[in-house]
Amino acid sequence: MLGHLARRLGRMQQISNGLKGIRLQQLLSKETHRHLQTSLETIRPISTVSLWPFSSQPRDFSQPNSSWSPEMRKAYDHYNALCDTDTENGEEKRGPWRKLPSYNRSIKYATGGIHLSKLIQAKARLFTRNVKEQGATFEYMVFVNKEEKRCVCVFQAGHLLEGAPGHVHGGAIATMIDTVTGTLAGFLSGPVMTANLNIDYRSPMPLGSVVLIHSALDRIERRKTYITCKVTSTDESKLYTEATALFVSISVGHLFGSRN
Amino acid sequence: MLGHLARRLGRMQQISNGLKGIRLQQLLSKETHRHLQTSLETIRPISTVSLWPFSSQPRDFSQPNSSWSPEMRKAYDHYNALCDTDTENGEEKRGPWRKLPSYNRSIKYATGGIHLSKLIQAKARLFTRNVKEQGATFEYMVFVNKEEKRCVCVFQAGHLLEGAPGHVHGGAIATMIDTVTGTLAGFLSGPVMTANLNIDYRSPMPLGSVVLIHSALDRIERRKTYITCKVTSTDESKLYTEATALFVSISVGHLFGSRN
Repeated sequence: MLGHLARRLGRMQQISNGLKGIRLQQLLSKETHRHLQTSLETIRPISTVSLWPFSSQPRDFSQPNSSWSPEMRKAYDHYNALCDTDTENGEEKRGPWRKLPSYNRSIKYATGGIHLSKLIQAKARLFTRNVKEQGATFEYMVFVNKEEKRCVCVFQAGHLLEGAPGHVHGGAIATMIDTVTGTLAGFLSGPVMTANLNIDYRSPMPLGSVVLIHSALDRIERRKTYITCKVTSTDESKLYTEATALFVSISVGHLFGSRN
Repeated sequence: MLGHLARRLGRMQQISNGLKGIRLQQLLSKETHRHLQTSLETIRPISTVSLWPFSSQPRDFSQPNSSWSPEMRKAYDHYNALCDTDTENGEEKRGPWRKLPSYNRSIKYATGGIHLSKLIQAKARLFTRNVKEQGATFEYMVFVNKEEKRCVCVFQAGHLLEGAPGHVHGGAIATMIDTVTGTLAGFLSGPVMTANLNIDYRSPMPLGSVVLIHSALDRIERRKTYITCKVTSTDESKLYTEATALFVSISVGHLFGSRN
């Protein structure tokens, strides 16, 4: 345990050292992370008052579509029902569950500095939402429980995510783990950046699988938010992957005005 | 250090436990991993005698194209020159460097079992080669040095890999780390599957960046191959990411005849 702590401390020091080399602009760019987007928007998840900076409402990619298998739809319906508003004695009562929306771009007040051409900036798309064909890559939505400080993502792995023949690429699983743990960390701690992912692959995941990605808060220590994660079958009988994730908070004061 | 060893041992035990639950078919499918493809093909990397099971030669996606930036092309030329054949005293002499080819499918002798429909199987594509537009996602090639038991990947991150605005998604970086460390593990140890990835993100990587992914053998202990990895700028002055990876060998005797 002490070795583990020493290792953690060493890693934190390394992160701190790593951050020293980052220019302010880069930090500002990083602050404007998808996790920020999530944390801002989940304040009013279904409200028509939006913080989205464009003229029209963005499309929420986590809505059901025809590529979803019956298993995917069933898992979605299960968690979506938990988000319902109950009426007791004429009073509306909302439970702790919320479904988060999912867009194909982060909010565009970032700057990529000298590295990022205008062309790239205009065409850029969120990695997990960059293929238009429904069902081909990442089909997923995230439900968050603010009381229990955890979330569940229902994920259907499309045929363009292949690693081993017929199976999902380890990098695609890592991508979903980063996305889901980062969403929870951002929800709980505000703007964060990923500092560490430690992923144990327990069992290969066939293409087309529908799985649950469970993320929960381990602990928050000053600027560090530690999240645990496991990926299971929808009936939770089979364990595919386990992971821990560390996110580092970026101060809210620097969030806006980061344009060059 | 002992804590570290104990942790490693504990993890190995967990992996072993995890493997017990896997059906034979799944193991066979996993055996037919991209790493197998790599290890098989690198036996004769530029030979016209191919183990590819289709009628025509597959396209090598790691050849230069018009989306490559001058920095990408320069890094490619540098490592490609190391692969040249020298002629001394009329005798051809090959150095230790080889460029590995990169296709958009793994070899198709796998079975996804009951999970994988024929439709999905026919349309499946390797995750890192699933977008046709050149330069949009992962542009990369891997050079391996068999004497030094290491490899270098030159990677240009396209605009569809966005995580934080203007920056590469942590999952896209994890995907390249899994790909490159797995390629080296497969080259050295034959067919393997990813068991663990532990990734420290030191500095955000702007979209459009060209980076080097250096992977080297740490050690081989029976069925376990440990690889270290770091991601740097092409001049190696800036460190973006560090990682360790653990791969587990799958016995060669089960490689073929895995169809249901």
